[in-house]
Amino acid sequence: MFRLYYAPGTCALATHIALEEAGAPYEAVLVDFRSQAQRSREYLAVNPKGRVPALVTESGTLTETPALFCYLTQRFPNAEIAPLEDPFALAQVQEFNSYLCSTVHVAHAHRMRGKRWADDAAAIEAMKRKVPSNVTECFELIEHKLLKCPWVMGERYTICDPYLFTIASWIEGDGVDTAKVPRVIEHCRRMLTRPAVQRAVAAEGIQIL
Amino acid sequence: MFRLYYAPGTCALATHIALEEAGAPYEAVLVDFRSQAQRSREYLAVNPKGRVPALVTESGTLTETPALFCYLTQRFPNAEIAPLEDPFALAQVQEFNSYLCSTVHVAHAHRMRGKRWADDAAAIEAMKRKVPSNVTECFELIEHKLLKCPWVMGERYTICDPYLFTIASWIEGDGVDTAKVPRVIEHCRRMLTRPAVQRAVAAEGIQIL
Repeated sequence: MFRLYYAPGTCALATHIALEEAGAPYEAVLVDFRSQAQRSREYLAVNPKGRVPALVTESGTLTETPALFCYLTQRFPNAEIAPLEDPFALAQVQEFNSYLCSTVHVAHAHRMRGKRWADDAAAIEAMKRKVPSNVTECFELIEHKLLKCPWVMGERYTICDPYLFTIASWIEGDGVDTAKVPRVIEHCRRMLTRPAVQRAVAAEGIQIL
Repeated sequence: MFRLYYAPGTCALATHIALEEAGAPYEAVLVDFRSQAQRSREYLAVNPKGRVPALVTESGTLTETPALFCYLTQRFPNAEIAPLEDPFALAQVQEFNSYLCSTVHVAHAHRMRGKRWADDAAAIEAMKRKVPSNVTECFELIEHKLLKCPWVMGERYTICDPYLFTIASWIEGDGVDTAKVPRVIEHCRRMLTRPAVQRAVAAEGIQIL
Protein backbone atom coordinates (compact mmCIF):
# COMPACT_ATOMS: atom_id res chain seq x y z
CA MET A 1 0.00 0.00 0.00
CA PHE A 2 1.51 3.33 -1.10
CA ARG A 3 0.88 6.62 0.66
CA LEU A 4 0.49 9.73 -1.54
CA TYR A 5 0.94 13.09 0.16
CA TYR A 6 -0.94 15.74 -1.79
CA ALA A 7 -2.60 19.14 -1.58
CA PRO A 8 -5.53 20.12 -3.82
CA GLY A 9 -4.66 22.47 -6.65
CA THR A 10 -1.02 21.35 -6.83
CA CYS A 11 0.84 19.17 -9.32
CA ALA A 12 0.27 16.20 -6.98
CA LEU A 13 -2.97 15.73 -8.92
CA ALA A 14 -0.92 14.30 -11.80
CA THR A 15 0.48 11.51 -9.64
CA HIS A 16 -2.93 10.99 -8.05
CA ILE A 17 -4.37 10.33 -11.51
CA ALA A 18 -1.42 8.11 -12.48
CA LEU A 19 -1.97 5.96 -9.38
CA GLU A 20 -5.61 5.53 -10.40
CA GLU A 21 -4.66 4.75 -14.01
CA ALA A 22 -2.10 2.19 -12.83
CA GLY A 23 -4.58 0.52 -10.49
CA ALA A 24 -2.03 0.91 -7.69
CA PRO A 25 -3.06 0.29 -4.06
CA TYR A 26 -2.66 3.61 -2.21
CA GLU A 27 -4.08 5.97 0.32
CA ALA A 28 -4.09 9.73 -0.24
CA VAL A 29 -3.00 11.93 2.67
CA LEU A 30 -3.88 15.62 2.59
CA VAL A 31 -1.11 18.09 3.48
CA ASP A 32 -2.90 21.25 4.59
CA PHE A 33 -1.12 24.15 2.88
CA ARG A 34 -3.45 26.66 4.61
CA SER A 35 -1.85 25.78 7.96
CA GLN A 36 1.61 25.49 6.32
CA ALA A 37 1.66 21.78 7.15
CA GLN A 38 4.21 21.27 4.36
CA ARG A 39 6.70 23.08 6.61
CA SER A 40 5.85 21.08 9.76
CA ARG A 41 8.49 18.90 11.37
CA GLU A 42 6.34 15.83 10.69
CA TYR A 43 6.08 16.51 6.98
CA LEU A 44 9.72 17.57 6.56
CA ALA A 45 10.61 14.13 7.93
CA VAL A 46 8.68 12.66 4.97
CA ASN A 47 9.96 15.15 2.39
CA PRO A 48 12.77 17.52 3.43
CA LYS A 49 11.95 19.74 0.43
CA GLY A 50 8.60 20.67 2.04
CA ARG A 51 6.64 20.16 -1.17
CA VAL A 52 4.09 17.77 -2.60
CA PRO A 53 3.76 15.19 -4.04
CA ALA A 54 5.65 12.59 -2.02
CA LEU A 55 4.99 8.89 -2.42
CA VAL A 56 5.86 6.49 0.38
CA THR A 57 6.54 3.02 -1.01
CA GLU A 58 7.69 -0.22 0.61
CA SER A 59 11.24 0.62 -0.59
CA GLY A 60 11.29 4.23 0.61
CA THR A 61 9.93 7.68 -0.23
CA LEU A 62 10.05 9.24 -3.69
CA THR A 63 9.41 12.82 -4.77
CA GLU A 64 9.37 14.80 -8.05
CA THR A 65 6.53 14.13 -10.47
CA PRO A 66 8.57 12.75 -13.41
CA ALA A 67 10.30 10.29 -11.06
CA LEU A 68 7.00 9.12 -9.57
CA PHE A 69 5.68 8.55 -13.08
CA CYS A 70 8.80 6.62 -14.02
CA TYR A 71 8.36 4.42 -10.96
CA LEU A 72 4.65 3.74 -11.49
CA THR A 73 5.10 2.86 -15.16
CA GLN A 74 7.74 0.29 -14.27
CA ARG A 75 5.92 -1.13 -11.25
CA PHE A 76 2.63 -1.47 -13.15
CA PRO A 77 3.70 -2.35 -16.70
CA ASN A 78 0.30 -3.87 -17.50
CA ALA A 79 -1.30 -0.46 -17.19
CA GLU A 80 0.72 0.57 -20.27
CA ILE A 81 1.01 4.22 -19.31
CA ALA A 82 4.43 4.65 -20.98
CA PRO A 83 6.13 3.05 -24.02
CA LEU A 84 8.70 1.12 -21.96
CA GLU A 85 9.70 -1.04 -24.93
CA ASP A 86 10.80 1.86 -27.17
CA PRO A 87 13.76 4.00 -25.94
CA PHE A 88 13.07 6.90 -28.31
CA ALA A 89 9.35 7.04 -27.54
CA LEU A 90 10.05 6.78 -23.82
CA ALA A 91 12.57 9.62 -24.10
CA GLN A 92 9.91 11.72 -25.84
CA VAL A 93 7.60 11.12 -22.86
CA GLN A 94 10.37 12.21 -20.50
CA GLU A 95 11.15 15.20 -22.71
CA PHE A 96 7.57 16.45 -22.52
CA ASN A 97 7.37 15.90 -18.77
CA SER A 98 10.75 17.56 -18.18
CA TYR A 99 9.56 20.60 -20.10
CA LEU A 100 6.45 20.74 -17.90
CA CYS A 101 8.39 20.49 -14.63
CA SER A 102 11.38 22.70 -15.45
CA THR A 103 9.82 25.40 -17.66
CA VAL A 104 6.00 25.43 -17.65
CA HIS A 105 5.38 24.77 -13.96
CA VAL A 106 8.15 27.27 -13.15
CA ALA A 107 6.56 29.93 -15.39
CA HIS A 108 3.26 29.39 -13.54
CA ALA A 109 4.89 29.42 -10.10
CA HIS A 110 5.99 33.03 -10.51
CA ARG A 111 2.35 34.05 -10.00
CA MET A 112 1.86 32.71 -6.47
CA ARG A 113 5.36 31.72 -5.32
CA GLY A 114 7.41 34.72 -6.40
CA LYS A 115 8.91 34.99 -2.91
CA ARG A 116 10.94 31.92 -3.72
CA TRP A 117 13.06 34.05 -6.07
CA ALA A 118 12.95 37.58 -4.62
CA ASP A 119 12.30 39.24 -1.26
CA ASP A 120 11.22 42.59 -2.61
CA ALA A 121 7.43 43.17 -2.91
CA ALA A 122 7.74 45.23 -6.11
CA ALA A 123 9.84 42.47 -7.71
CA ILE A 124 7.24 39.87 -6.78
CA GLU A 125 4.58 42.04 -8.45
CA ALA A 126 6.80 42.42 -11.53
CA MET A 127 7.07 38.63 -11.78
CA LYS A 128 3.29 38.28 -11.54
CA ARG A 129 2.83 40.70 -14.42
CA LYS A 130 4.91 38.53 -16.73
CA VAL A 131 3.11 35.26 -15.93
CA PRO A 132 0.30 35.63 -18.51
CA SER A 133 2.70 36.11 -21.44
CA ASN A 134 5.16 33.46 -20.21
CA VAL A 135 2.55 30.77 -19.64
CA THR A 136 0.86 31.69 -22.93
CA GLU A 137 4.17 31.23 -24.76
CA CYS A 138 4.64 27.77 -23.20
CA PHE A 139 1.09 26.73 -24.04
CA GLU A 140 1.33 28.00 -27.61
CA LEU A 141 4.34 25.72 -28.08
CA ILE A 142 2.32 22.84 -26.59
CA GLU A 143 -0.74 23.68 -28.70
CA HIS A 144 1.11 23.99 -32.01
CA LYS A 145 4.16 21.72 -31.70
CA LEU A 146 4.01 19.23 -28.85
CA LEU A 147 0.44 18.03 -28.32
CA LYS A 148 -0.55 15.33 -30.74
CA CYS A 149 -4.14 14.14 -30.52
CA PRO A 150 -6.17 12.60 -29.02
CA TRP A 151 -3.40 12.23 -26.39
CA VAL A 152 -0.14 14.10 -25.91
CA MET A 153 1.85 11.36 -27.64
CA GLY A 154 -0.85 10.59 -30.22
CA GLU A 155 -2.99 7.46 -30.18
CA ARG A 156 -1.44 6.16 -27.01
CA TYR A 157 -2.41 7.49 -23.58
CA THR A 158 0.69 8.04 -21.41
CA ILE A 159 1.83 9.68 -18.19
CA CYS A 160 2.20 12.93 -20.17
CA ASP A 161 -1.59 13.24 -20.18
CA PRO A 162 -2.32 13.61 -16.46
CA TYR A 163 0.62 15.99 -16.15
CA LEU A 164 -0.55 18.26 -18.99
CA PHE A 165 -4.12 18.10 -17.68
CA THR A 166 -2.98 19.20 -14.21
CA ILE A 167 -0.90 22.16 -15.37
CA ALA A 168 -3.47 23.18 -18.01
CA SER A 169 -6.07 23.41 -15.22
CA TRP A 170 -4.14 26.44 -13.91
CA ILE A 171 -3.79 28.50 -17.09
CA GLU A 172 -7.02 30.45 -16.93
CA GLY A 173 -5.96 31.69 -13.48
CA ASP A 174 -2.55 32.49 -14.96
CA GLY A 175 -4.21 34.89 -17.40
CA VAL A 176 -3.94 32.81 -20.55
CA ASP A 177 -6.60 33.45 -23.17
CA THR A 178 -7.80 29.86 -23.49
CA ALA A 179 -9.36 30.60 -26.90
CA LYS A 180 -5.77 30.57 -28.21
CA VAL A 181 -5.21 26.95 -27.16
CA PRO A 182 -8.36 25.05 -28.20
CA ARG A 183 -6.59 21.71 -28.58
CA VAL A 184 -5.29 21.93 -25.00
CA ILE A 185 -8.81 22.65 -23.74
CA GLU A 186 -10.23 19.75 -25.78
CA HIS A 187 -7.56 17.54 -24.24
CA CYS A 188 -8.74 18.60 -20.76
CA ARG A 189 -12.33 17.69 -21.64
CA ARG A 190 -11.19 14.35 -23.03
CA MET A 191 -9.30 13.66 -19.80
CA LEU A 192 -12.44 14.37 -17.76
CA THR A 193 -14.22 11.48 -19.50
CA ARG A 194 -11.75 8.97 -18.01
CA PRO A 195 -12.92 7.25 -14.83
CA ALA A 196 -9.41 7.41 -13.27
CA VAL A 197 -9.34 11.18 -13.75
CA GLN A 198 -12.86 11.56 -12.37
CA ARG A 199 -11.93 9.58 -9.26
CA ALA A 200 -8.78 11.61 -8.54
CA VAL A 201 -10.50 14.96 -9.16
CA ALA A 202 -13.43 13.96 -6.93
CA ALA A 203 -11.12 12.73 -4.16
CA GLU A 204 -9.29 16.09 -4.13
CA GLY A 205 -12.63 17.95 -4.14
CA ILE A 206 -11.64 20.26 -6.98
CA GLN A 207 -13.50 21.67 -9.97
CA ILE A 208 -11.85 21.67 -13.42
CA LEU A 209 -13.48 23.43 -16.41
CA MET B 1 26.06 9.26 -35.53
CA PHE B 2 24.32 11.64 -33.11
CA ARG B 3 24.67 15.41 -33.25
CA LEU B 4 24.84 17.27 -29.92
CA TYR B 5 24.10 20.99 -29.99
CA TYR B 6 25.81 22.67 -27.05
CA ALA B 7 27.19 25.95 -25.73
CA PRO B 8 30.07 26.07 -23.22
CA GLY B 9 29.06 26.87 -19.65
CA THR B 10 25.53 25.50 -20.06
CA CYS B 11 23.89 22.31 -18.81
CA ALA B 12 24.65 20.73 -22.21
CA LEU B 13 27.95 19.70 -20.60
CA ALA B 14 26.08 17.01 -18.66
CA THR B 15 24.86 15.35 -21.85
CA HIS B 16 28.28 15.83 -23.44
CA ILE B 17 29.83 13.84 -20.59
CA ALA B 18 27.08 11.20 -20.72
CA LEU B 19 27.73 10.68 -24.46
CA GLU B 20 31.41 10.13 -23.65
CA GLU B 21 30.60 7.77 -20.77
CA ALA B 22 28.22 5.79 -22.99
CA GLY B 23 30.77 5.51 -25.78
CA ALA B 24 28.16 6.89 -28.18
CA PRO B 25 29.18 8.00 -31.67
CA TYR B 26 28.46 11.75 -31.90
CA GLU B 27 29.66 15.08 -33.15
CA ALA B 28 29.38 18.20 -31.01
CA VAL B 29 28.08 21.36 -32.69
CA LEU B 30 28.65 24.70 -30.99
CA VAL B 31 25.68 27.08 -30.76
CA ASP B 32 27.20 30.54 -30.36
CA PHE B 33 25.23 32.25 -27.60
CA ARG B 34 27.32 35.45 -28.02
CA SER B 35 25.74 36.00 -31.44
CA GLN B 36 22.34 34.75 -30.15
CA ALA B 37 22.58 31.77 -32.51
CA GLN B 38 20.12 29.90 -30.28
CA ARG B 39 17.45 32.31 -31.55
CA SER B 40 18.41 31.96 -35.26
CA ARG B 41 15.92 30.49 -37.70
CA GLU B 42 18.32 27.61 -38.38
CA TYR B 43 18.58 26.63 -34.73
CA LEU B 44 14.89 27.10 -33.96
CA ALA B 45 14.24 24.54 -36.71
CA VAL B 46 16.33 22.08 -34.64
CA ASN B 47 14.90 23.10 -31.25
CA PRO B 48 11.90 25.46 -31.23
CA LYS B 49 12.61 26.20 -27.54
CA GLY B 50 15.83 28.01 -28.51
CA ARG B 51 17.88 26.29 -25.83
CA VAL B 52 20.64 23.72 -25.53
CA PRO B 53 21.20 20.80 -25.35
CA ALA B 54 19.49 19.23 -28.33
CA LEU B 55 20.45 15.78 -29.58
CA VAL B 56 19.72 14.77 -33.15
CA THR B 57 19.33 11.00 -33.43
CA GLU B 58 18.40 8.71 -36.31
CA SER B 59 14.82 8.66 -34.93
CA GLY B 60 14.47 12.43 -34.45
CA THR B 61 15.57 15.25 -32.16
CA LEU B 62 15.39 15.14 -28.37
CA THR B 63 15.77 17.94 -25.82
CA GLU B 64 15.71 18.29 -22.00
CA THR B 65 18.64 16.84 -20.06
CA PRO B 66 16.76 14.16 -18.06
CA ALA B 67 15.19 12.86 -21.28
CA LEU B 68 18.55 12.71 -23.06
CA PHE B 69 19.97 10.76 -20.12
CA CYS B 70 17.01 8.38 -20.18
CA TYR B 71 17.58 7.79 -23.89
CA LEU B 72 21.35 7.23 -23.63
CA THR B 73 21.04 4.80 -20.72
CA GLN B 74 18.59 2.68 -22.70
CA ARG B 75 20.47 2.88 -25.99
CA PHE B 76 23.81 2.00 -24.37
CA PRO B 77 22.89 -0.41 -21.58
CA ASN B 78 26.41 -1.86 -21.48
CA ALA B 79 27.72 1.48 -20.23
CA GLU B 80 25.69 0.87 -17.05
CA ILE B 81 25.08 4.54 -16.33
CA ALA B 82 21.67 3.93 -14.70
CA PRO B 83 20.16 1.02 -12.70
CA LEU B 84 17.72 -0.01 -15.45
CA GLU B 85 16.93 -3.31 -13.74
CA ASP B 86 15.65 -1.77 -10.46
CA PRO B 87 12.50 0.43 -10.68
CA PHE B 88 13.01 2.06 -7.28
CA ALA B 89 16.71 2.82 -7.84
CA LEU B 90 15.95 4.15 -11.33
CA ALA B 91 13.22 6.37 -9.88
CA GLN B 92 15.74 7.71 -7.34
CA VAL B 93 18.03 8.64 -10.24
CA GLN B 94 15.13 10.44 -11.94
CA GLU B 95 14.17 12.10 -8.66
CA PHE B 96 17.64 13.57 -8.23
CA ASN B 97 17.81 14.74 -11.84
CA SER B 98 14.29 16.21 -11.72
CA TYR B 99 15.28 18.19 -8.64
CA LEU B 100 18.32 19.53 -10.50
CA CYS B 101 16.34 20.58 -13.58
CA SER B 102 13.21 21.96 -11.94
CA THR B 103 14.59 23.55 -8.76
CA VAL B 104 18.39 23.88 -8.68
CA HIS B 105 18.99 24.95 -12.28
CA VAL B 106 16.01 27.32 -11.96
CA ALA B 107 17.43 28.86 -8.76
CA HIS B 108 20.73 29.45 -10.60
CA ALA B 109 19.04 30.83 -13.73
CA HIS B 110 17.66 33.81 -11.80
CA ARG B 111 21.20 35.24 -11.76
CA MET B 112 21.72 35.60 -15.50
CA ARG B 113 18.30 34.94 -17.03
CA GLY B 114 16.04 37.00 -14.79
CA LYS B 115 14.47 38.64 -17.84
CA ARG B 116 12.69 35.37 -18.48
CA TRP B 117 10.46 36.11 -15.48
CA ALA B 118 10.26 39.91 -15.24
CA ASP B 119 10.72 42.90 -17.53
CA ASP B 120 11.55 45.41 -14.84
CA ALA B 121 15.29 46.11 -14.25
CA ALA B 122 14.87 46.52 -10.48
CA ALA B 123 13.03 43.19 -10.27
CA ILE B 124 15.80 41.48 -12.20
CA GLU B 125 18.32 42.92 -9.70
CA ALA B 126 16.14 41.73 -6.79
CA MET B 127 16.16 38.19 -8.23
CA LYS B 128 19.96 38.29 -8.53
CA ARG B 129 20.28 39.24 -4.87
CA LYS B 130 18.41 36.12 -3.78
CA VAL B 131 20.46 33.68 -5.89
CA PRO B 132 23.27 33.10 -3.36
CA SER B 133 20.90 32.08 -0.55
CA ASN B 134 18.63 30.04 -2.86
CA VAL B 135 21.44 28.08 -4.49
CA THR B 136 23.11 27.60 -1.10
CA GLU B 137 19.88 26.13 0.28
CA CYS B 138 19.67 23.67 -2.63
CA PHE B 139 23.31 22.64 -2.28
CA GLU B 140 23.04 22.21 1.48
CA LEU B 141 20.22 19.73 0.86
CA ILE B 142 22.43 17.96 -1.69
CA GLU B 143 25.45 18.03 0.64
CA HIS B 144 23.64 16.71 3.72
CA LYS B 145 20.77 14.58 2.41
CA LEU B 146 21.08 13.60 -1.26
CA LEU B 147 24.71 13.04 -2.19
CA LYS B 148 25.98 9.64 -1.17
CA CYS B 149 29.64 8.97 -1.82
CA PRO B 150 31.74 8.39 -3.81
CA TRP B 151 28.98 8.99 -6.38
CA VAL B 152 25.57 10.61 -6.06
CA MET B 153 23.84 7.24 -5.74
CA GLY B 154 26.64 5.65 -3.69
CA GLU B 155 29.01 3.03 -5.07
CA ARG B 156 27.52 3.12 -8.52
CA TYR B 157 28.30 5.89 -10.99
CA THR B 158 25.13 7.06 -12.76
CA ILE B 159 23.81 9.85 -14.97
CA CYS B 160 23.22 11.87 -11.77
CA ASP B 161 26.97 12.45 -11.55
CA PRO B 162 27.61 14.47 -14.74
CA TYR B 163 24.47 16.50 -14.04
CA LEU B 164 25.52 17.40 -10.47
CA PHE B 165 29.07 18.11 -11.65
CA THR B 166 27.78 20.51 -14.31
CA ILE B 167 25.49 22.49 -12.02
CA ALA B 168 28.02 22.46 -9.16
CA SER B 169 30.53 24.08 -11.51
CA TRP B 170 28.36 27.23 -11.41
CA ILE B 171 27.90 27.65 -7.66
CA GLU B 172 30.97 29.74 -6.91
CA GLY B 173 29.74 32.25 -9.48
CA ASP B 174 26.31 32.07 -7.88
CA GLY B 175 27.81 33.30 -4.60
CA VAL B 176 27.77 30.03 -2.67
CA ASP B 177 30.43 29.67 0.00
CA THR B 178 31.91 26.40 -1.24
CA ALA B 179 33.47 25.71 2.16
CA LYS B 180 29.92 24.81 3.27
CA VAL B 181 29.64 21.99 0.73
CA PRO B 182 32.94 20.08 0.92
CA ARG B 183 31.45 16.77 -0.25
CA VAL B 184 30.07 18.44 -3.38
CA ILE B 185 33.50 19.92 -4.14
CA GLU B 186 35.18 16.53 -3.53
CA HIS B 187 32.66 15.00 -5.94
CA CYS B 188 33.69 17.57 -8.58
CA ARG B 189 37.35 16.66 -8.14
CA ARG B 190 36.50 12.96 -8.35
CA MET B 191 34.62 13.61 -11.58
CA LEU B 192 37.65 15.38 -13.06
CA THR B 193 39.69 12.17 -12.73
CA ARG B 194 37.39 10.38 -15.20
CA PRO B 195 38.63 10.31 -18.81
CA ALA B 196 35.11 10.86 -20.18
CA VAL B 197 34.75 14.03 -18.11
CA GLN B 198 38.20 15.25 -19.13
CA ARG B 199 37.39 14.75 -22.82
CA ALA B 200 34.06 16.64 -22.64
CA VAL B 201 35.52 19.50 -20.58
CA ALA B 202 38.48 19.82 -22.96
CA ALA B 203 36.23 19.74 -26.03
CA GLU B 204 34.16 22.63 -24.63
CA GLY B 205 37.33 24.56 -23.75
CA ILE B 206 36.19 25.31 -20.21
CA GLN B 207 37.98 25.41 -16.87
CA ILE B 208 36.42 23.79 -13.78
CA LEU B 209 37.98 24.15 -10.29
